Amino acid sequence: MSASKASTSTQPMDEEPVLRVFNSLTRTKDVFKTKKPKHIDWYNCGPTVYDSSHMGHARNYLTQDIIRRILRDYFGYNVNFVMNITDIDDKIILRAREKYLLDQTKSSNPTLTPGLIKDTRIAFGKFLSSKLIKSLPSPIDTSSTTDDLEIFHTILDKYKTDATFAESARTKEEKFALYIASLLKAHGAIKIAEGKLNGSNQQDVDDLIDGASDVLGPYYGETLGHTIKDPISVSRTLALYWESEYFKDMERLRILPPNFKPRVSEYVNEIVQFVSRIIDNGFAYEAEGSVWFDVTKFDGAEGDGFRHEYAKLQPGSKGNKKLIDEGEGALTGSKGKRQSADFALWKAKSKPGEPAWPSPWGEGRPGWHIECSVMASAILGKGMDIHSGGVDLMFPHHDNELAQSEAYHGCQQWVNYFLHTGHLHIEGLKMSKSLKNFITIEEELSRNTARRLRLAFMLQNWNQKLDYSRGLIADTKAKEETFDNFFANVNARLSQAGSSVDDQHGMGEAEIALTNHMFGAQRDFHSALCDSFNTPSAIQVLLDLIAKTNIYFSARARDANLGVVTNVAEWITRMLRMFGLGEGAPAKNSIGWGLAVQGGDDAQNGSDTSAQVEPWARAISSFRDTVRKLAMDKSISSDQLSKQILALSDRFRDEEAVNLGLQLDDGQGNDGGALWKIVDPSSLISAREEKRKIIAEKQAKKEALAKANEEKRIALLEKGKISPKDMFKPPQVPTDLYSEWDDQGIPIKDVEGKEVSKSAQKKSLKEWKIQEKLHENYLTWKKEQEQAQ
Amino acid sequence: MSASKASTSTQPMDEEPVLRVFNSLTRTKDVFKTKKPKHIDWYNCGPTVYDSSHMGHARNYLTQDIIRRILRDYFGYNVNFVMNITDIDDKIILRAREKYLLDQTKSSNPTLTPGLIKDTRIAFGKFLSSKLIKSLPSPIDTSSTTDDLEIFHTILDKYKTDATFAESARTKEEKFALYIASLLKAHGAIKIAEGKLNGSNQQDVDDLIDGASDVLGPYYGETLGHTIKDPISVSRTLALYWESEYFKDMERLRILPPNFKPRVSEYVNEIVQFVSRIIDNGFAYEAEGSVWFDVTKFDGAEGDGFRHEYAKLQPGSKGNKKLIDEGEGALTGSKGKRQSADFALWKAKSKPGEPAWPSPWGEGRPGWHIECSVMASAILGKGMDIHSGGVDLMFPHHDNELAQSEAYHGCQQWVNYFLHTGHLHIEGLKMSKSLKNFITIEEELSRNTARRLRLAFMLQNWNQKLDYSRGLIADTKAKEETFDNFFANVNARLSQAGSSVDDQHGMGEAEIALTNHMFGAQRDFHSALCDSFNTPSAIQVLLDLIAKTNIYFSARARDANLGVVTNVAEWITRMLRMFGLGEGAPAKNSIGWGLAVQGGDDAQNGSDTSAQVEPWARAISSFRDTVRKLAMDKSISSDQLSKQILALSDRFRDEEAVNLGLQLDDGQGNDGGALWKIVDPSSLISAREEKRKIIAEKQAKKEALAKANEEKRIALLEKGKISPKDMFKPPQVPTDLYSEWDDQGIPIKDVEGKEVSKSAQKKSLKEWKIQEKLHENYLTWKKEQEQAQ
Repeated sequence: MSASKASTSTQPMDEEPVLRVFNSLTRTKDVFKTKKPKHIDWYNCGPTVYDSSHMGHARNYLTQDIIRRILRDYFGYNVNFVMNITDIDDKIILRAREKYLLDQTKSSNPTLTPGLIKDTRIAFGKFLSSKLIKSLPSPIDTSSTTDDLEIFHTILDKYKTDATFAESARTKEEKFALYIASLLKAHGAIKIAEGKLNGSNQQDVDDLIDGASDVLGPYYGETLGHTIKDPISVSRTLALYWESEYFKDMERLRILPPNFKPRVSEYVNEIVQFVSRIIDNGFAYEAEGSVWFDVTKFDGAEGDGFRHEYAKLQPGSKGNKKLIDEGEGALTGSKGKRQSADFALWKAKSKPGEPAWPSPWGEGRPGWHIECSVMASAILGKGMDIHSGGVDLMFPHHDNELAQSEAYHGCQQWVNYFLHTGHLHIEGLKMSKSLKNFITIEEELSRNTARRLRLAFMLQNWNQKLDYSRGLIADTKAKEETFDNFFANVNARLSQAGSSVDDQHGMGEAEIALTNHMFGAQRDFHSALCDSFNTPSAIQVLLDLIAKTNIYFSARARDANLGVVTNVAEWITRMLRMFGLGEGAPAKNSIGWGLAVQGGDDAQNGSDTSAQVEPWARAISSFRDTVRKLAMDKSISSDQLSKQILALSDRFRDEEAVNLGLQLDDGQGNDGGALWKIVDPSSLISAREEKRKIIAEKQAKKEALAKANEEKRIALLEKGKISPKDMFKPPQVPTDLYSEWDDQGIPIKDVEGKEVSKSAQKKSLKEWKIQEKLHENYLTWKKEQEQAQ
Repeated sequence: MSASKASTSTQPMDEEPVLRVFNSLTRTKDVFKTKKPKHIDWYNCGPTVYDSSHMGHARNYLTQDIIRRILRDYFGYNVNFVMNITDIDDKIILRAREKYLLDQTKSSNPTLTPGLIKDTRIAFGKFLSSKLIKSLPSPIDTSSTTDDLEIFHTILDKYKTDATFAESARTKEEKFALYIASLLKAHGAIKIAEGKLNGSNQQDVDDLIDGASDVLGPYYGETLGHTIKDPISVSRTLALYWESEYFKDMERLRILPPNFKPRVSEYVNEIVQFVSRIIDNGFAYEAEGSVWFDVTKFDGAEGDGFRHEYAKLQPGSKGNKKLIDEGEGALTGSKGKRQSADFALWKAKSKPGEPAWPSPWGEGRPGWHIECSVMASAILGKGMDIHSGGVDLMFPHHDNELAQSEAYHGCQQWVNYFLHTGHLHIEGLKMSKSLKNFITIEEELSRNTARRLRLAFMLQNWNQKLDYSRGLIADTKAKEETFDNFFANVNARLSQAGSSVDDQHGMGEAEIALTNHMFGAQRDFHSALCDSFNTPSAIQVLLDLIAKTNIYFSARARDANLGVVTNVAEWITRMLRMFGLGEGAPAKNSIGWGLAVQGGDDAQNGSDTSAQVEPWARAISSFRDTVRKLAMDKSISSDQLSKQILALSDRFRDEEAVNLGLQLDDGQGNDGGALWKIVDPSSLISAREEKRKIIAEKQAKKEALAKANEEKRIALLEKGKISPKDMFKPPQVPTDLYSEWDDQGIPIKDVEGKEVSKSAQKKSLKEWKIQEKLHENYLTWKKEQEQAQ
């Protein structure tokens, strides 16, 4: 026996491209290798939940979703995707505190009071002379007048007339614009309130507080913050609200939920332990209740056969004070910090009314960077394959995270691949967190579908800047239409080709060429995705294949081999759905990417809806038809019309509705109508059959009873067959009983000629009378029967 | 700048298992490597279309579908799956010819005739003394009597009484059983027909011919075959019918359609060319119009650096005459064949009435084995990655295919991986093609769902014998229930957990343990599939993970971390759907494998159906409610009831139905009711708005017209404001016109006292009378207005 050996010798194999991923740690496209086979541990920086999600967030989370789907559904990895929810943060604390205090003020002021308006004026003044305005050249002298509004007008005038001032203000454009906008809004609200002081109501109070919230919020925060009794719960309420809103937005964007979504507030104990160990390892120090990471000590420190390194991702930013301070948060001072490059691991509670947790260093809260290190370590262990986040988080957040984690684990490299998604610009302009003219996700989804957004994002590489512009939208729309038209065209040809039996199986030159184009496209598509998820190329490959298929269609017209085209359409469908671009359930023939919906709330619209609702349409239409026919039938009387409609309704409930799986419980609905339920038709059918069986049994019993009664009645009637005159004569009585009877047939002598006793005669007469009655009934019955025949 | 280098150094990677596939060519599990990256060229032996598909077919095609899905949806290959349809074949020719001739006989015999019955008796006799019965010991002497039925009874008696005969018959059990069954059926039909000879109709003829078809078919085939004028079309009609039935069965089994499904009849030219080249290459010879493959010459022949080899798959069967002859077909002789091991590439037309195509060797048809070589080469080129088929096709079919193809291409190895699916037994007994008590796919699907079949098959390795038994079904049902219960349990807990905001994000020890179990299961699942698609192990991995999750559920009760459980359920769902075990569209939360349906015809039942039909249920219920309320309202008159119902119906058509996307064209339906269409609601809404706009415009025009008319009328009425008595007085006329008027106010003197001319007075009076009428109208109008106020 000489079986052929290894299969590879005679048929040479092409070299297979391998997946490479742009890694911020090496700034190159590294070959992607996971620690465990087919398994990816991935930690992604999640949202800080204190406001609506905007298009910048969409870019970030959509991009990660696209990569996650490619890794999972194209490359076949089991992806363990962990994303934190930052629910302890200076911004959350500030926002929550302000909201809480403003709400308190509203509820304790049913009408406008001079005190409330005075407070607002003071807050206005404080806001007016904020840091920002003081930082501008030739500042306004706020001591020269007590009228804040006057100062405000002075600023506006100055902005219009003083070129140097205006120039300088423009360099702080966003902040200045926000500053002026807040003042204008507050100014308007104060003016209105002042006019309404006499005879105001709750609405007026709310209007004042909402209108002046930008100035009142910080003022109350500073002056009343200490009055908050349960600051943790105040923060948590706000965070929970925005967390929920965030996940709604993600669902609208068809973003897969994370496998794990730890909240910082649930990991405070672990954070304290983590920080303690970093201190023990010698890379952090406590000072005045806070704990600081000692950057100088860490950077270059000897590890076990390696040297620690700080700012691996963005070494150029090492020591950049501005970036470091921004990373520390608005409520955080620097008391006890040794070097300016050091950053907080644990922040001492600085003021009453701030949320705080116990720790060996006193009450306080976690620093921003530490949370990610702790939660990632708690869930993923000593390291991970991928860490991702927006490019703006590179320094100091991710560099600090790496330093902390490597200081804690005593390892050289905590993350193997660091993926940073590029910025989003709107019409060429940068978006930044402080500018309020952001486009929220909800807003954008009212204009464009989630699919369009996703496709638009895919037309740029994930790690490059994306300009979300009218041009991009137009380009995306055009590409969407190409896909739409292609699927519509293929489906139309398929549905009009009739039975599959008569399609063309043969493969001519054109068919072989198109098939080879498809194989080429599949190869190119694979190479594109291996090239660090190059989605613009991958999409272009699909579009080029469609172009070639359209050319084939035109050339072959009605003779096109639909099998070949189906292969193309089915593959393109599968790849689009793999990217998350599909909507609803796949069609029965596996072709098409479904119907995208505005707003994104209908995640389950099926492309094959019609098949499901067809029986419903049929039933509804036929019921309505019958009702109309009855109503139009002039020969039916009013009484009859009502009866027939009610009978029809019952029949509908018991027949058509049952077959649809629609259970109608008449009179049980809220409005006195039917309570309807969608159930399994088979259970409904068997319930109906059971009911019918019971009814049939009852009916049978009733009929049996009626029959028995009738038999009884007839027996009784039959008893009256004999005339009373004959009742005492043979054959009714034995022949040896009587010999003589009177006229009515009452026996008067016995067989021996002896007279029958009076009492016996009396008894006979009694019986006679009964029989007379029975006989009368009998005769009437017989007469009726004769007449009925 | 010192970025960290290769990511692999510090975090060691586990070794990744590689896919190995059991290859019949090497009889070992070979590492699977494709010729082109991520691309698989696969040729699968498809059906010979002349009868219903049975469970043996199901085993074969379902198994290949499972492997295809694993390669495509788990390992991420682009699978180019080619499957032939054998529509030229001796069995098809025979079956088609018989069917055609029997149909002809039916249509030319409106009543039973002695001739027809005589023919049937003759056919009965021929069948009775067939080869089979002659091959048994102490055969029946058919010359001793002319009564065939007598002989038949003799056989039956002999079977009951002669142990040697019965024993021998039992060795040919299947064939003997079929033989007896055919005779019994025919015997019964003849008896009935004989009794009805006087006064028979078409039905009686049909009954005779159908009942005796097993004996009449071969008889007519032999005696009348030559009368068939277009035998190609006769064969094709039968083949097309069974091809269509085959694909229906495959759809019911949720088997993906092939990418290409070439029919032999479409490749006859290519076959002729292919055979010519094998002759040219010296490995085949023509003899008496047939072409034979020269096995002796091929086996061991020198190739380009290699030696050809015959019977690579089943070398032990080399020269097995029985197997070789079976492979050649019932209509094929061996005229001109040099060695018994040689096999036909082209079969000369032997009898008139056989389908035949032109060739350089005269009219004929392709041999069985050659078709696959030709179609695979035409579509896949010089070779392929995978060839598959049932294990019974190994020899001679696949070995001959390899020999032909390698002789044609001059290559050493045409196929890299030969996959043979194992046999199917029913309750421990072998099924074979000649036995008619096969279970057809349709039959089995009326008892068990397509999912159950698939899962049952997956519980055995694909290349091993499968015993389809009651025990297996019970075991499969139990496993199905485990999955069902698990999904129901998880979904119930998820839906009762309320908003996602309040779920538990934290990870305790139990959660980490379960998560690690899942990662372990994912690793084991991967290893199982890499181990030559070991589906029994893979399914067991899923079931074990469910068991662990259930233990976790019990331990944590209401405190279970639903996120962790969701990860498990979502992964299990995805893997089950990957195998083709899912039904309908995935649920919105991606958990669950849908509802399997008996019969398998509803491929698109969605697990999320209720969401889609809910608005329909609401609409239908509310419409019915309203109709009922109207019908029950005793205060509504008959006339009103009709009107209101019709108005309600119109409103339903224009409002609710439009919102549902249900277009109702009243009076356009077949039965005079509404023609209904399911359309895009938005298009329907805009059509309605358009219609409303037009109506509104018409209405506006009408109103404008009415307003103009009213203004005219009022102007006219206002004209009558002046009493005729004052109409010729100032200020109605200039003061310098008249000086005297009569009682009625007709001017009689001008301003200078001069009398007004009679004609002028007459004219004035005329005007006066007109004004009098106008004034009267005016006064009436005013009065009406006053009264109206």
